[in-house]
Amino acid sequence: MDNKKNENFSEWYTEILQKAELADIRYNVKGFVVFRPWSVLTMERMYDIYEKELQNKGHKPAWFPILIPESNFNLEASHVEGFKPEVFWVTEHGNGEKLEEKLALRPTSETAMYKMYSLWIQGLVDLPLKIYQRGSVYRHETKATRPFIRGREFYWIEAHNCFATEKEAKAQVKEDMQTTEEVMHQEFCIPFIGFQRPEWDKFAGSVNTYAADTLMPDGKVIQQPSTHLLGQHFSKPFDVSFQDEKGEKQYVWQTCYGPAISRMYASLISVLGDDKGLRFPFDLAPIQVIIIPIYKEENKRDVLKYCNKIKKSLSNNYRLEIDDSKNTPGFKFNEWEMKGVPIRLEVGGREVENNQVTVSLRTSKEKQTIKLIKLKKFIRINGREITEQLRKEADINFTNTVHHAKTMENLKKALRKGGFVKVPFCSIKMKGKDCADHIKAETGGDIRGIRVDGKEKLVEGDVCIFCGKPAKHLVYVARQY
Amino acid sequence: MDNKKNENFSEWYTEILQKAELADIRYNVKGFVVFRPWSVLTMERMYDIYEKELQNKGHKPAWFPILIPESNFNLEASHVEGFKPEVFWVTEHGNGEKLEEKLALRPTSETAMYKMYSLWIQGLVDLPLKIYQRGSVYRHETKATRPFIRGREFYWIEAHNCFATEKEAKAQVKEDMQTTEEVMHQEFCIPFIGFQRPEWDKFAGSVNTYAADTLMPDGKVIQQPSTHLLGQHFSKPFDVSFQDEKGEKQYVWQTCYGPAISRMYASLISVLGDDKGLRFPFDLAPIQVIIIPIYKEENKRDVLKYCNKIKKSLSNNYRLEIDDSKNTPGFKFNEWEMKGVPIRLEVGGREVENNQVTVSLRTSKEKQTIKLIKLKKFIRINGREITEQLRKEADINFTNTVHHAKTMENLKKALRKGGFVKVPFCSIKMKGKDCADHIKAETGGDIRGIRVDGKEKLVEGDVCIFCGKPAKHLVYVARQY
Repeated sequence: MDNKKNENFSEWYTEILQKAELADIRYNVKGFVVFRPWSVLTMERMYDIYEKELQNKGHKPAWFPILIPESNFNLEASHVEGFKPEVFWVTEHGNGEKLEEKLALRPTSETAMYKMYSLWIQGLVDLPLKIYQRGSVYRHETKATRPFIRGREFYWIEAHNCFATEKEAKAQVKEDMQTTEEVMHQEFCIPFIGFQRPEWDKFAGSVNTYAADTLMPDGKVIQQPSTHLLGQHFSKPFDVSFQDEKGEKQYVWQTCYGPAISRMYASLISVLGDDKGLRFPFDLAPIQVIIIPIYKEENKRDVLKYCNKIKKSLSNNYRLEIDDSKNTPGFKFNEWEMKGVPIRLEVGGREVENNQVTVSLRTSKEKQTIKLIKLKKFIRINGREITEQLRKEADINFTNTVHHAKTMENLKKALRKGGFVKVPFCSIKMKGKDCADHIKAETGGDIRGIRVDGKEKLVEGDVCIFCGKPAKHLVYVARQY
Repeated sequence: MDNKKNENFSEWYTEILQKAELADIRYNVKGFVVFRPWSVLTMERMYDIYEKELQNKGHKPAWFPILIPESNFNLEASHVEGFKPEVFWVTEHGNGEKLEEKLALRPTSETAMYKMYSLWIQGLVDLPLKIYQRGSVYRHETKATRPFIRGREFYWIEAHNCFATEKEAKAQVKEDMQTTEEVMHQEFCIPFIGFQRPEWDKFAGSVNTYAADTLMPDGKVIQQPSTHLLGQHFSKPFDVSFQDEKGEKQYVWQTCYGPAISRMYASLISVLGDDKGLRFPFDLAPIQVIIIPIYKEENKRDVLKYCNKIKKSLSNNYRLEIDDSKNTPGFKFNEWEMKGVPIRLEVGGREVENNQVTVSLRTSKEKQTIKLIKLKKFIRINGREITEQLRKEADINFTNTVHHAKTMENLKKALRKGGFVKVPFCSIKMKGKDCADHIKAETGGDIRGIRVDGKEKLVEGDVCIFCGKPAKHLVYVARQY
């Protein structure tokens, strides 16, 4: 790599996209990119893990149409206000024939799904309803797009749930944050803080938004999965209702949850990568073990035979390949390090003779010699440890980026260092928006909200960092993507 | 089920869609349906199996944008002629702002992908290139739509390949047909015949189209995965080229292959279902084993505890559930038979006492008593056998539906029985189209093409069933979906 991640992150990011062939920005529609195999193999695995966890928690998959009639879209007032400016519209077919009604290329699927929920839900027996879909959504973003970070097409999962009671809906929102922890943090090794967003930054149509914020190496925050308490904002206009025990009509309580796989991939490579290139949790690497044969003409056959024997013995359990291309071993070492393969096996004449392999881990500088008979166990144990190590490193870096400030001057200074700054603040209801706007204008920082884990309390007498009125919350401020 | 599959298939199909909650046609965009969890769980599994096989054969996954600029689309003349009438166009965004260029919602992705291939392929080292994507495509069909069978949105895989030589491209087409055999026939239990399509029925832009035709229970044929030899028809206008060993510019030879998962699902449920409802190959069932507890108040706790013990011991290897709803056991038996669960376990007081379960297979009428200790092995063996049995049944039914005719009169009669009719025919080049049109007008039958396995030969002196000129081929005729 020509660039250093912590010195010039933006260039590092551009370089890794190209060198590891993750995405190609040359597709000729603005804001749309092509995701290439080396990223898609990992993102497909991320989908698998996420979907499995959702299914474990009682969500079921469905596929809803990608096109939404304008009339559906207009049903919930603040939703349409928030999303309409970003919609791509299908208006014609064939040789220019107009459609009867404009169709939105879905920017999110509430208004596609809830019309059907209204048909499917009649009584208590139909509740709770927990359905998700994997798919892509479309938003005509005006902000600059960047592969994986922000684009006009992105790949996500959206889970949309209905409950008989508000209490269950609130419990679902907690469960969703827990899922983010279990999957994004534990499996993908991306640390985050969960926030309740201020009123002015919530999802269009929601009662409250809860979101996971993580940090990029340049100290800017990026929003990861968010979950929204929708209350009855949609169930009333969409008539999603049921008869209760007394035979009375009740509207359901709703939530939705949106882990964006392509965006989590941006965090994955940025948080875990280093100055040699990509690093992956063992389970997410497109290739987990790369075998590099090193031979001369006279022992070529023996070395390759031995490599194939290793491959065969491991390929039921791991994704592994032999790199028998014409490049030099040194070139191959760099190449596969850059691509983030967690375990490299070198096999030469000496390895064949002694029934062993020379092993290098992507996360360590040392080489080790392992007897072939112990290789399977070695990979099993070290695979786990690689993931643990990456998560621990990421956690430590993340913890060190939370600062404090009680004055605007200190806030400005702290924000320059990057990361989060905790400040006392007047209100996360709409009446606090004025202070938030001033803070944004003066410091470039956004109010990300209050921690959902309630770990911190204000000190008696704290006042809002901007207006000086008594503080109601300790909020986190950060510059955002 | 109220309808019998072989007596009134169309009603049977409508009934199973509703009763098993496979799809909902009430979505308010014409030709678009909602695919519900019970079908999606199986289709996701079908995707997994198909993608795994493609990856085994060296294809790599990518994600290309869903929107294609009109200018890309127009590059290959016969492609645009074939597909443009069916395109949905995105023309606006936000509050009615016009886009600079109209964007096609992809009906197929040649014109999205090959522009990028042109950038990616420079030399022999970049070949072969074998990339696929899973996704949905959009066609403004004028034919009547039917869930899974034909719709304006369908779910498929498209694999697009580039080679240095025509020979390799032709070998790929054979490999694709082999993949159809290995996956669709062997794993999904759907028998088919592979045809080379006549000139007038090939894919728009191809040199030749090879397609798998299977039959629905009403005797009409449905096209399943097709693979196309594209030659250099696209590589020239899209400039997908490489420098050969001599440093000269050569255009690549291309193929593409399109297994449509949602359409294969139509065949799966239609071919394998019976008058009780769905039947699945063991590996494709959303739930593989259903446990029905049967208890009175006094032994409820013991029975449920025993059920949970069984579930726990099997849930690492199988998808299984306990149905502890309030319905009667008889209702549950019918319900899960209709939904196609391959293995049912009944657990009552007697089973608990004797450490056993009572087992019923969806494919057999008898019940058996199995000791708990032998259950895992029983399921493993019978799971395999259920799949074998379904495939054998389907094969036998399929074989019996190929007839012969040498006169138009006999062709008409034979087509009334349903299935394929083999007839001698003048030409599958464009000069045969006139005869094909007449046959279609008089009998309703389409020329499906000549068998790719070359199993059959004309008899000396055979003449075209319509024009009476010397026959060049034995072609298959069938009424189609």
